[in-house]
Amino acid sequence: MSTKYVYLFSEGKKEMRNLLGGKGANLAEMTNAGLPVPQGFTVTTEACTRYYDDGREIAPEIQAEIFEYMGKMEAMVGKTFGDKNNPLLVSVRSGSRASMPGMMDTILNLGLNDEVVEGLAAKTGNPRFAYDSYRRFIQMFSDVVMEQPKTEYEKLIDEMKENRGVTLDTELSADDLKELVSLFKARYRENQGVDFPADPKVQLIEAVRAVFRSWDNPRANAYRRMNEIPYDWGTAVNVQSMVFGNSGDNSGTGVAFTRNPATGEKKLFGEYLINAQGEDVVAGIRTPFPISHLEEQMPAVYNEFAAIAQRLENHYRDMQDMEFTIEDGKLYMLQTRSGKRTAAAALKIAVDLVDEGMITETEAVMRVEPKQLDSLLHPQFDAAALAKATVIGKGLAASPGAANGQVVFTAEEATKWHADGKKIILVRLETSPEDIEGMAIAQGILTARGGMTSHAAVVARGMGTCCVSGLGEMVVDYDKKQFTLGGKVYNEGDMISLDGSTGNVYGEAVPTTEATISGDFDRLMKWADEIRQLEIYTNADTPTDAQHAVDFGAEGIGLCRTEHMFFEADRIKAMREMIVATDVEARKKALAKILPYQQGDFEAIYEVMGDRPVVIRYLDPPLHEFLPTVEADILAIAADLGITADHLKHVVESLHEFNPMMGHRGVRLAVSYPEIAEMQTTAVIQAALNVSKKTGKNIVPHIMIPLVGEVKELQYVKNFVVATADKLIKDAGSSMKYEIGTMIEIPRACLIADEIAADADFFSFGTNDLTQMTFGFSRDDAGKFLDYYYESKVYESDPFAHLDQNGVGKLVKTAVDLGRKTKPNLHVGICGEHGGDPSSIEFCHNVGLDYVSCSPFRVPIARLAAAQAAINNPRK
Amino acid sequence: MSTKYVYLFSEGKKEMRNLLGGKGANLAEMTNAGLPVPQGFTVTTEACTRYYDDGREIAPEIQAEIFEYMGKMEAMVGKTFGDKNNPLLVSVRSGSRASMPGMMDTILNLGLNDEVVEGLAAKTGNPRFAYDSYRRFIQMFSDVVMEQPKTEYEKLIDEMKENRGVTLDTELSADDLKELVSLFKARYRENQGVDFPADPKVQLIEAVRAVFRSWDNPRANAYRRMNEIPYDWGTAVNVQSMVFGNSGDNSGTGVAFTRNPATGEKKLFGEYLINAQGEDVVAGIRTPFPISHLEEQMPAVYNEFAAIAQRLENHYRDMQDMEFTIEDGKLYMLQTRSGKRTAAAALKIAVDLVDEGMITETEAVMRVEPKQLDSLLHPQFDAAALAKATVIGKGLAASPGAANGQVVFTAEEATKWHADGKKIILVRLETSPEDIEGMAIAQGILTARGGMTSHAAVVARGMGTCCVSGLGEMVVDYDKKQFTLGGKVYNEGDMISLDGSTGNVYGEAVPTTEATISGDFDRLMKWADEIRQLEIYTNADTPTDAQHAVDFGAEGIGLCRTEHMFFEADRIKAMREMIVATDVEARKKALAKILPYQQGDFEAIYEVMGDRPVVIRYLDPPLHEFLPTVEADILAIAADLGITADHLKHVVESLHEFNPMMGHRGVRLAVSYPEIAEMQTTAVIQAALNVSKKTGKNIVPHIMIPLVGEVKELQYVKNFVVATADKLIKDAGSSMKYEIGTMIEIPRACLIADEIAADADFFSFGTNDLTQMTFGFSRDDAGKFLDYYYESKVYESDPFAHLDQNGVGKLVKTAVDLGRKTKPNLHVGICGEHGGDPSSIEFCHNVGLDYVSCSPFRVPIARLAAAQAAINNPRK
Repeated sequence: MSTKYVYLFSEGKKEMRNLLGGKGANLAEMTNAGLPVPQGFTVTTEACTRYYDDGREIAPEIQAEIFEYMGKMEAMVGKTFGDKNNPLLVSVRSGSRASMPGMMDTILNLGLNDEVVEGLAAKTGNPRFAYDSYRRFIQMFSDVVMEQPKTEYEKLIDEMKENRGVTLDTELSADDLKELVSLFKARYRENQGVDFPADPKVQLIEAVRAVFRSWDNPRANAYRRMNEIPYDWGTAVNVQSMVFGNSGDNSGTGVAFTRNPATGEKKLFGEYLINAQGEDVVAGIRTPFPISHLEEQMPAVYNEFAAIAQRLENHYRDMQDMEFTIEDGKLYMLQTRSGKRTAAAALKIAVDLVDEGMITETEAVMRVEPKQLDSLLHPQFDAAALAKATVIGKGLAASPGAANGQVVFTAEEATKWHADGKKIILVRLETSPEDIEGMAIAQGILTARGGMTSHAAVVARGMGTCCVSGLGEMVVDYDKKQFTLGGKVYNEGDMISLDGSTGNVYGEAVPTTEATISGDFDRLMKWADEIRQLEIYTNADTPTDAQHAVDFGAEGIGLCRTEHMFFEADRIKAMREMIVATDVEARKKALAKILPYQQGDFEAIYEVMGDRPVVIRYLDPPLHEFLPTVEADILAIAADLGITADHLKHVVESLHEFNPMMGHRGVRLAVSYPEIAEMQTTAVIQAALNVSKKTGKNIVPHIMIPLVGEVKELQYVKNFVVATADKLIKDAGSSMKYEIGTMIEIPRACLIADEIAADADFFSFGTNDLTQMTFGFSRDDAGKFLDYYYESKVYESDPFAHLDQNGVGKLVKTAVDLGRKTKPNLHVGICGEHGGDPSSIEFCHNVGLDYVSCSPFRVPIARLAAAQAAINNPRK
Repeated sequence: MSTKYVYLFSEGKKEMRNLLGGKGANLAEMTNAGLPVPQGFTVTTEACTRYYDDGREIAPEIQAEIFEYMGKMEAMVGKTFGDKNNPLLVSVRSGSRASMPGMMDTILNLGLNDEVVEGLAAKTGNPRFAYDSYRRFIQMFSDVVMEQPKTEYEKLIDEMKENRGVTLDTELSADDLKELVSLFKARYRENQGVDFPADPKVQLIEAVRAVFRSWDNPRANAYRRMNEIPYDWGTAVNVQSMVFGNSGDNSGTGVAFTRNPATGEKKLFGEYLINAQGEDVVAGIRTPFPISHLEEQMPAVYNEFAAIAQRLENHYRDMQDMEFTIEDGKLYMLQTRSGKRTAAAALKIAVDLVDEGMITETEAVMRVEPKQLDSLLHPQFDAAALAKATVIGKGLAASPGAANGQVVFTAEEATKWHADGKKIILVRLETSPEDIEGMAIAQGILTARGGMTSHAAVVARGMGTCCVSGLGEMVVDYDKKQFTLGGKVYNEGDMISLDGSTGNVYGEAVPTTEATISGDFDRLMKWADEIRQLEIYTNADTPTDAQHAVDFGAEGIGLCRTEHMFFEADRIKAMREMIVATDVEARKKALAKILPYQQGDFEAIYEVMGDRPVVIRYLDPPLHEFLPTVEADILAIAADLGITADHLKHVVESLHEFNPMMGHRGVRLAVSYPEIAEMQTTAVIQAALNVSKKTGKNIVPHIMIPLVGEVKELQYVKNFVVATADKLIKDAGSSMKYEIGTMIEIPRACLIADEIAADADFFSFGTNDLTQMTFGFSRDDAGKFLDYYYESKVYESDPFAHLDQNGVGKLVKTAVDLGRKTKPNLHVGICGEHGGDPSSIEFCHNVGLDYVSCSPFRVPIARLAAAQAAINNPRK
C-alpha cells in the first residue's frame, strides 16, 4: 500500500501530532468534537520529508492526492475550487509538530483570479469584500510564497489611501480595491517576470511548496537550533475552506487565550477586529477590541466562544490559545493550541490547575519549560521599551538577563566608575581571570571573542551577570577607548544595553525590570524536588556564588575551581615566583605564601556549605596563563619578581604552547610539580579541619584531580595527596574522612574508566573538554566554522550547548558502565556546562548519573529538568 | 603453598624464561644438558616484583629462601659461604626476560673478607690470586652495588702501577694487591661513611638488592621505553659459584659467538684473556687474543669449547653468544644466549640457517628484528670513527641514518651551497613546508623544536633523509648565522654530523658508509611477503617518494598529502589569493590557477604507481599556515597580492586560532569552501583519466576526506565531489571507477563508524591525530611534560611512537567493528606514523586491518613486521 499523504480533518486526532503537525491534529480534534471548524485537510509532515528527499520536488502522486482531497472538500462544502459561480476559497497554513515561529505565514483567500473574484462579488453581492479578499491574496502570495518585498505592496496601499484621502483600509471602496489589484498584479509581474498565476491549482501547489520550503529558511533553522527541534521532522500543510471575517460589519476575526498568558490570571484574554481578516488583528493598523467587548457587541457569539474556550481548556487540560472568525454572525474556530506563556504565567497556571483539580502535581511539573525559569531569576527588559529599541549587534546569548549601563573597557575603569556610583557595561575583546573584579561589579559583559564556554561566559553565568559574548563584528580599540559596531563608533561612557538571553545589543539604555520569584515557584520546585532522582550541585568558586546556589536549592558544589584563587592580586605574585622558580625548594617557598590565602578561601566556602559536599578541583590551566605576554608587563613583573627580563622572557617562551587546550595542564601539572597539589591538599584539609571544629559540622572534603587520562596518573598524584592529607588529619587528632575523585574529560579516560574507578571515589564528567576532544575541535575556534556547519545542516545544534548524545554521550555511557563495573556504588556526576541544559540533564538521568552540577542561576532549571527527566524516563 | 622465589639451575629450563630471566633459564638448560656449568641458583623475577610491591624491601622470607638455596649449593660444591678454610665464592648477576643493557653489571668473588681471603690464599697457595680476587670484589661492589665513582678506584690502581713502574695489572705482586685492598677499603669508608661489609650474607643481600634496584635506573628505563619492555616484568638474579680465570697462566676467560655477529659468517668468533676475570676482556687494558688462538694455546680446551658451541647452536637453532672461563685448564660455561647481531648478520644467519636445514623460512622471518632493517637502508657512521667522535648534543632520533655536512640555516642557503657541490646539514628552529627544497638536498636536518611527528621528522622520514629534531638546548641565531650548543658556537659552514638513529649530534665530520642491501634481504623479504596478510602501502606525496616506496615493495600509496602541493613556489601565490578572496567567485578564480599544477602532480604520481591504489587526502591544514606572520613578509606579500597590508593583516588575524590542531582544518575546510574540494576533485579525476588513457592502466582514484567526525560532514562533501567527478568522467566518455573514503582520526568518528561506513568506501586511521585527541594532548606540546611522565612511570612509552592499544586501540577496534557491521568488506587501513612501527603493525593485524601505510623507508620494516604479526597471531 502506498503512503497516505493527505488526511481530512475528520480523519485525524490530537495523538497524530507527529504526522499532522500540531495545528492539523488540533483542527482534527476540534472537528471530531463537533466544534464549528471550517472543513479542510492536512498534507502530512511525511510529504514534507519526501519533498526534501526528492530534491525539493512535490511528487506527482502527492499532488494528485492533494487534488483528490480538494475534491472531497468540495463535496462537503458544496463549492468548487476555481469555479467562478460558486467558488471554494482556501487558506494554506504551515503546522509542524512543535509550534515553530519562523516558518511560513498564512495564505488566505487562495483560489481567486480575475474571473472567480467577479463570481464571488456577484454571489455575495459584495464586490468590496470580493476585491478586498483578492488584493489580500495577491499581497500574501507575493510576499509569502514568492518572497517579494512586502513593503512594496504596503506602499501601494498607502499611496492609494493618500490619493483617496482616507486613513483606514476599510475606507477604500470596491473600485479602489479593484484598482489596487491591478497595481498589485503589475508589481508582481515586474518583480517575478511572469504573470500572477491565475490557475487556482498552480496557486495551491505553489503555496504548499512554499510551506515545505519555509521549513528550511534561516529563521526556522535558527529557531530549531535554539530549541533542539530535529530538521527531519518536517512540517505539515493545512488547507482549509475560507470563512470570511472581512465580509461586513457582522463579521470579524480574533485571537484569545483561556487565561492571561502574561500573568496566568484565570480570565478569557484576547482581542478581535470587526470586518477584518487574518493578520489585521496583529498588524496594528486598526486598534482591536479586547475580547470582553465582544460580550457587549455580539453576546451570543461571545457566549458560544466562551463556552467553547472552556470546553477546549477542559479537554486539553491546559491554557488554550485560539483563533476564531465570525462570518455573518456565525462563529468558526480556526485553531486551538496550548498557549505560549511567560514563566510567571506558566508557574501560576500550573499551580492553579493543580488547585483546581485539573492536573496532578507531576503534570504541573511537566507544564513549565525549565529554560523559562531563567527569566524569573534575572532582570528583564521592559517589554514596551524593548519593542522600540534598536538592535546594533547580535552576539552569543552567553549569560541570561538584561542590563544597561555605560561602556568601559577595562576592569580598572569599571571599578573606578562603579565607585562613582555608575552602572557600567564592561566591553572587552575577551576576558581573563584578571578581569574578575571588574566583571563582578558590571551590570553586563560584552566580548568580541569567545563562545558559550569562554571565560566571560562561564564566569558571568556563575555570577548571574548578563553577558553577550563572541560579537565578532565588533571592533574594539582599547587605545582610543571605543568600539565600532555596524559602522557606528561607541565611546567610553556611552550607554548601551545587553540582552543575555538573546545576544542582542542595543545602542541605548533600555529600562529593565527586576527579577521576581513568586510563591508558585517554591510550590512547583518542591514538587519537582520530590520527583527528581538526580542531585543538583552547583559550580561555584566563591562564598558568594555558593550562597546564591544554596538559596536556589543547590545540594552541594560539584565544581569549585581553584585557579581563580591564584589570580587574585594578593597571590598572583607568589604564583609567578613559583613558576619562575628553578628548583623544587624555591617552588615550595612560593607556594607556602599562597597556602594561607587558599586555605582561607576554602574555609569561607565550607562555612557557607556546611556538611554539603564541596568538590574542589585542583589547579587546571597551563602555567603560562599566569604570566604576562606584553613586553611592558614582562619588564614590570620581572622587576617585581627580582629577576631579569630575559629570565622571565625565557620562562614565558619555554611555556609557550601550540595548542594550550591540549597542553601542560590539569593532572599533568600535579605529576610535574607535586608540590602544587601538596599545597592544595594542605589548604583543603586544614580548612575542613578548622571549619569542622568551629561549626561541629561533619565536613568530608572532596578532592578532584582534573584531566586524568591514565590510571597511573591518578595513582601517582593520589599517593602524595593521601600522604599529605593523612598526616594533617592524624596531627590534628581527627578521624575526618575525605574523598579523591577525578574529572572524566578526556576520551581515553572513558575508555579505561574501569581501571580509573579502582582508584577514584567519584567521577565527574567535564563535558566541555570531553566534547572538544571527542569532536576534535576547540570551542574557542569552532565559531569560525560552525556557521558553515549550521548552514549545511551538518550540525543542527551547538554541541557545547547540548550534549552530543550520539558521540560524546556514548563515551559518557561507556565510562559510567565501566566505572560501575569496578565500583557499583561509584558516585558519578557531571560538572560541564551541560549540567544546566535540560536535554543534557535528561541524558544524565538516563545514563544513571547521581548528580548534575551547574552554575548557581541554573540550579532551579536543573531541579525542574531533572524532575521532568524522571517523569519521562522512570528508572528501573 | 607459598610462592617459590628461588630455583637451583638444575630445577629450571629454557621455557622458564619469564620467571628465571634469559640468563637463568639458559644456565638451567645448559646445566641439565650436562655442560660444564658452575652450580648456582636463580632468584626469580617475581621476587623483584615483590621487592617493588613491598616498597623496595626484600621480604624476610625471600632472604631466608636465598640462604636456604645457598646451603644447597654449599652441599653440592663442597664449599661453605664465608668459611675461611674452604670458602664458597659466588658471582651475582642480573638477568631479565629480555636481554637488557643498562641494568646491573656483574659482581664477582662475592663472599670475600679479610679472613676468607687469607684462607683462599692458603688453600690455593696463591696469595696473588686471592688478593687480586678480593680487590676486584671490593672494586665491583663499591661501583655496582654502592654506586661509588668507578674512576676513583681505577685511579688508585693506576697510581700503584706508576709507583711500581709497571704497566699491566698482572705485573702487580700479591703484596701490591693486598695494599690496594687496604686503599680500596679506606676509600670505601670515606665514600660510604661505614666500613666495607665483612659479612658475606650482608654482601649477598646488598648485591641482590642492587640488581633489583637497577631494574629502575634511568638507563634501564630509557632502554625499556625504546624497546617496549614493560616495567612490571622485573629482573631475576643469578647467584653462581665462582670459577677463577685469574688463578694463573693455565686459566683465563673469554666471550665468543658461534657466527660472526657483524657479518654473519659461519665461523667461531670471539676473544679471550689468560689469567683474567670478567670484564678484563672488554676493558681494553690488555689486548685479548682472538678465539682462534686458543686452538694453539690450549687445543683440548678449544676443541671442547668448539664442540659445546656447536652443540648449543644446534640446540637453540640460532647463533649463540657465550661466556666461558678456564680454571686451571678446565673449561666452564658461564652463559649462552642468542647473540645480538647487526642487521646484515641477522639476514645472513637467518637465510643460512634455512639453507643449512636448521630452521624453516617462517622461523627465519622471525629471526630478524624489523627495526634493524633501518640500518640497511640508510647510510651509517663508520664504527671506528664514531667511537672517537664527541657527542655535542642529543635530540630525538627523528629519521634514521647518518650524515655529515656543513651547517646552513635556510633552505635558500642550502640550495646555494648544494649548487656549489657542498654537502650540507640544514639547521632550523623548526621546518615548514617552505623549506622542502632545502630539506630535499640536505644530507641531514637538525631542528631545535618539534617531536617525532613534527614537520621536519615526517618529511625527512618520507625522503629517507637523516633527521634529529627537538634538540631543545640548541640556541639558534638566524641573524648571526650560528647556533650554540653545550656552550660552544657553531657557524655557517662548520662541519657537523647527525645520527638520526640515536639522536646524537657530533661537532665534526664523522665519515659514513653507504647503505647496502644484499641478496639475503630479497630472499627474506620474499618469505615475509608470502606470510603476511596485511597489505603494505606507503605515505608519499611526490613521484620520487612514490618510486622509492615501490622499489622497497610498497603496494600502493595509503596517504598522499596534497598540502605540500599548495606550498610550492609556483602556486603559493594563487593559494594566498584564494585565502584573501572575499567571495566564492574570487576563490574559484584563484583555485583555477592552482588546478593545472595539482593535476600535473597527480599525473606524475599515477605514472609511477600505475594501477596500484593511490589514496589522495584532500587539503588538511588550517589556511593560516599558508599566510605570513612576520610584519616584513606581510608587507611584501600584500604588495605581491595587490591588496593592502591592513587587509592581509586582517585576514591573518581573523584566521588566528587558539588551538590550530583542533581548528578550521580537514573536512571543515571542504564544508566551508566546497570550491577547494571541487578543484581537487577535478585535478584527481582529470589526472587519472589522462594517465589511464596514456598508459592503458586501470586507475581507480581513491579520494580521502580528512578529519570527519560526523557522517553528515562526509555526505555533504561527498555530494559535490561525486557531482564533479561524475561529470568529468561522463564528459570524457569514460567509465572509470573511483572511491571516496575518509580518515578516521577523531574519537567521535570511531564512535559513529557504523554511520560513516554507510557513506565511505574505505577507512584510513590517522592515528597521529587520534592519539592526540584520545589522550587530550598535542604532540607539539607533550614534550614539555612527557619526561615527567616517564620519570614517574605514568607512561612507559611514547604513544606517538607505539600505538596505545589500551586506549586509542579500543577506539580503533570499535571503529573497525562498527564499520564492518555496516559494510562487511570495508577496506580499512592505517596511515598514521604508527603504520611503520612493528608493535603497532601487530595490533593492526590483530584487529583485522587490510593495510598499513608508512613512509617509504619503513616499507621493508612493515613488510617484515606484518609477516611476524601473522606468524604470532594467525587469523581465524
